[in-house]
Amino acid sequence: MSLIENLNWRYATKKMTGETISEDALNNILEATRLSASSYGLQPYNIIVVSNPETKKQLLPAAYGQTQITDSSHLLVFSIWENISDKQVGNYINDIATTRGIPAEALKGFADTILGTVKNLSPEQQQAWASKQAYIALGTALIAAAEQQVDATPMEGFIPEAFDTILGLKEKGLKSVVILALGLRSEKDDLANALKVRRAKDSFYSFI
Amino acid sequence: MSLIENLNWRYATKKMTGETISEDALNNILEATRLSASSYGLQPYNIIVVSNPETKKQLLPAAYGQTQITDSSHLLVFSIWENISDKQVGNYINDIATTRGIPAEALKGFADTILGTVKNLSPEQQQAWASKQAYIALGTALIAAAEQQVDATPMEGFIPEAFDTILGLKEKGLKSVVILALGLRSEKDDLANALKVRRAKDSFYSFI
Repeated sequence: MSLIENLNWRYATKKMTGETISEDALNNILEATRLSASSYGLQPYNIIVVSNPETKKQLLPAAYGQTQITDSSHLLVFSIWENISDKQVGNYINDIATTRGIPAEALKGFADTILGTVKNLSPEQQQAWASKQAYIALGTALIAAAEQQVDATPMEGFIPEAFDTILGLKEKGLKSVVILALGLRSEKDDLANALKVRRAKDSFYSFI
Repeated sequence: MSLIENLNWRYATKKMTGETISEDALNNILEATRLSASSYGLQPYNIIVVSNPETKKQLLPAAYGQTQITDSSHLLVFSIWENISDKQVGNYINDIATTRGIPAEALKGFADTILGTVKNLSPEQQQAWASKQAYIALGTALIAAAEQQVDATPMEGFIPEAFDTILGLKEKGLKSVVILALGLRSEKDDLANALKVRRAKDSFYSFI
């Protein structure tokens, strides 16, 4: 199906069946997410993929009991880097150098540009910037899921600090910012057949 | 092509030819962007589509002279609502009621949920939240462009206040947050053939 058909097919699924999605579909979604666009290509976030039923049960109250947590096949927790360090930028520069077969020194200007941008931001601004990059990846993951005919629910309604504790993210310098439940829609989900509502073109766009 | 192939094809184009993309391709990209996921479905942002050469020339210095501004076919300016008002939420609720043929009163609980979330946020937090929604749409637009074999450059390096003034956004209660140049890659763009660099799977994902 085309992208527009996939976007029309998807919706934020309210009730999932608890079934597991295929490994192929999961891998495809993860790979597309990894290939997402990101400012400077830095990708300042990690993704935690939760399928363990016990862990999901622990997370449930921290997401206000929303049943997609436990009825999903896999739960993707988009987690930004709490601080963007010189070392992380250095690792990225080394990755470029290795992949493209060029000396890291030739990338010094680019490294300085990234560090200049990042160091100019307060810790809160850094996290806001990293979050926006993670949301680009969220958008990609939603489209990837639809292409695989996998249902998905993006969720902001959860307590990040509780997720961070349960998943041991603090020790890793990570902070959860948004989650995405992947699974299969239940026949009991009333919204499955509801018409999609989107802003009218003439109020959404203007042309200059 | 599949989504993964499209993501591998695309890159943040540094040099564009100045050629105009087809109306079909543009309309497809705009429609996919309009269908993007958004928290509550609210879509608290507008998109300004700039193709006027004079306007692009005015915008150029406000984007530090980056040539994609003037060499693009169209420039999408993602602009968040400065404030999310009761009226805007009301309009959305009315849209749902009309589209789905249900009385607006039946959606009162949903309206209260949205307003409860929004009113709990400071103006800065509202704007940060709206920006993240716009970044989901940016991710969608990038994929839509790649599907149409249209090149694209997402850009954060510009002066939002200057863009807002030139485009008359303040009067409309809008604030530019990110821009996307659409066009065709020049043969002179060295990056066109550079290998894509993305985080290694084992550092990007962890499984629980």
